[in-house]
Amino acid sequence: MPAAHLPGMDYERPLFFRVMQYAARADRDVVGMVSGNPDWEPPAALRDGLRAYADADPEAFQYPPSEGLTKLRAEIAERRGVDVDRVIVTNGTGEANYLAMASALDRGAGDEILLTDPVYPYYPGKTELLGGTQRYVPADEDGQLDPAAVRERASEDTAAILVNTPNNPTGAVYDEATMRDLVAIAEANDALLLSDEVYDHFDYSGRFASALGVDSEHRIVTNAFSKSMAITGFRVGYAVFPEELVDAAKTRHMLVNVAGSRPAQQAVLTALQETDPAYYEANRELMAERVETFTAALDDAGAEYTTPDGGFYVLARFEDFPGTLANVERLIDEAGVAGMPGDAFGTAREDWLRFALVTPRVEEAADRLAEFFG
Amino acid sequence: MPAAHLPGMDYERPLFFRVMQYAARADRDVVGMVSGNPDWEPPAALRDGLRAYADADPEAFQYPPSEGLTKLRAEIAERRGVDVDRVIVTNGTGEANYLAMASALDRGAGDEILLTDPVYPYYPGKTELLGGTQRYVPADEDGQLDPAAVRERASEDTAAILVNTPNNPTGAVYDEATMRDLVAIAEANDALLLSDEVYDHFDYSGRFASALGVDSEHRIVTNAFSKSMAITGFRVGYAVFPEELVDAAKTRHMLVNVAGSRPAQQAVLTALQETDPAYYEANRELMAERVETFTAALDDAGAEYTTPDGGFYVLARFEDFPGTLANVERLIDEAGVAGMPGDAFGTAREDWLRFALVTPRVEEAADRLAEFFG
Repeated sequence: MPAAHLPGMDYERPLFFRVMQYAARADRDVVGMVSGNPDWEPPAALRDGLRAYADADPEAFQYPPSEGLTKLRAEIAERRGVDVDRVIVTNGTGEANYLAMASALDRGAGDEILLTDPVYPYYPGKTELLGGTQRYVPADEDGQLDPAAVRERASEDTAAILVNTPNNPTGAVYDEATMRDLVAIAEANDALLLSDEVYDHFDYSGRFASALGVDSEHRIVTNAFSKSMAITGFRVGYAVFPEELVDAAKTRHMLVNVAGSRPAQQAVLTALQETDPAYYEANRELMAERVETFTAALDDAGAEYTTPDGGFYVLARFEDFPGTLANVERLIDEAGVAGMPGDAFGTAREDWLRFALVTPRVEEAADRLAEFFG
Repeated sequence: MPAAHLPGMDYERPLFFRVMQYAARADRDVVGMVSGNPDWEPPAALRDGLRAYADADPEAFQYPPSEGLTKLRAEIAERRGVDVDRVIVTNGTGEANYLAMASALDRGAGDEILLTDPVYPYYPGKTELLGGTQRYVPADEDGQLDPAAVRERASEDTAAILVNTPNNPTGAVYDEATMRDLVAIAEANDALLLSDEVYDHFDYSGRFASALGVDSEHRIVTNAFSKSMAITGFRVGYAVFPEELVDAAKTRHMLVNVAGSRPAQQAVLTALQETDPAYYEANRELMAERVETFTAALDDAGAEYTTPDGGFYVLARFEDFPGTLANVERLIDEAGVAGMPGDAFGTAREDWLRFALVTPRVEEAADRLAEFFG
């Protein structure tokens, strides 16, 4: 049974909580740059949707369809240009990725999941839970994924290639040619490309390309409203499955969760229907400005870093200051800035620290880092 | 991989939906007695909690702790008299049972789940998903479970004994002596008793005994607020684990779902804190009255039935009218009453029909049945 073999591994949340707790107990003011929780307002219509739901008939408080509220699925299908039957509304991207990985492993066409290094730590955790094996493809220094490196490691053992674009933690955004190549590699190896696109609204490069743009039965796209609507706690996500895999995924979803939570789904539906594109645009601009502010200060601090093309995070390396938990704690105590150790994301970034820019105090944090390291 | 082996089995919801759809398309008025969705008001404080949450700071819309809102877990732990560290808030009883069954199978002490016949159809489905095997213990004619029959079938292969009290579909409530015996059988076979107690607020016999009343490291209790607060769509449940299994269960919960949905958890917390016991009492009395009304009419219809000691359902058998889907459809068309086929719940009740009493039209339905069969 897979879970018995799970090591006492530090997945992101426990480590994340340890760092947050350490920061909260610090004897000084600390700018938190640990979590990926948006710090801005959700869409006004989301609050309206919740308020209206609070007054709904008791019937509206009962089970939604297992695969999600019908209107919500229809909205998602229309926006993404896919057949509604292929859409399952999930308990956030977390469940969407779990279902996608289970689908890939259950096909019986390989038991290996190709992951990138650096990696989002839930992916290896889910792979182990599902009894799959892991193989890593190193990302380039700037976080880009070279399809040739993926092709080289893909084989008949490959069940899935799992990517995250825009990427956590590197900030890389994979362009259309890369996505096409990745799907082709999946097809050539009778595998699936799994593309987690939860940061898709935060592309600063204009080069983001969803895997949905590549027509193929060999890809699953996962996403959520967690980041785009600033509601990581609502747990409303979705996955778009190939036709021949969607029924098995619906069955697993039903057997694990029965259905997702209806108040959250209803609020997201209202927000989807009534929110002006300017809402998303403004938050993307806010984040793009924070990237500029923060990286400029990193220059002043003499740090090495990758300017993110998308997402919430900046990876930075300071001389003689590897990205260990001990150094993260030192930075909390002595600089008043809390980040995440780079070694939480695989071996490739052990020397680095990850800073989440979802705080209004980005400039202050940058100044503190410049002063500490300057 | 387990899910590839899942047959195209009819779990309750798809069949349930088929029957509901058939009823909705019928050319006549139909009293729906298919679903287990409460038809009464949720606690007023639940609506208040949702309204207040709709106005909360953006921070309150972000990830709750993976194992559930701290105050909600504390409320649950206090009410159930258990250590809060053993409580995981889940996406309804559905996820709670999934985690409990995975825990039992992951211990490496057997791969067989003992189930009752009749059985709630999600249980065999989850067993298959998790790669376990099933063995059935027949319930008595009145739905009671004879511990001797369980003891006879338990062995070193037994990973878990899974019971549901008050029971769906039989309406049986297991008394304290039975629960004590079941835990002892689990202990004697190095197995776990898994007790799904989601209908615990609907005990009409006064004999309900939670497995939490038996002190043992060999039992897991699952529950939810779905029925007691009339919110099956909110997906807020919980499981109480033995100390040595709770960490692995938290890891699985985190890897599958990250966390449950926060608006629903917050609303349930408010309702727990502010709802007078009279709310639960009134709904139990309402259901007890419906049981009386319905069974009296079944007498008039010449049906055989078991008077439920708890829960939402009555199993009834009409002469020469087996509980097939075809007969369920006939009853919809010709009597205007929609029930569930007994054969959805295993082999023991193939001749029976299950009627859910969560409709204000119980008396009307009973009259229609009396007229049709009388």
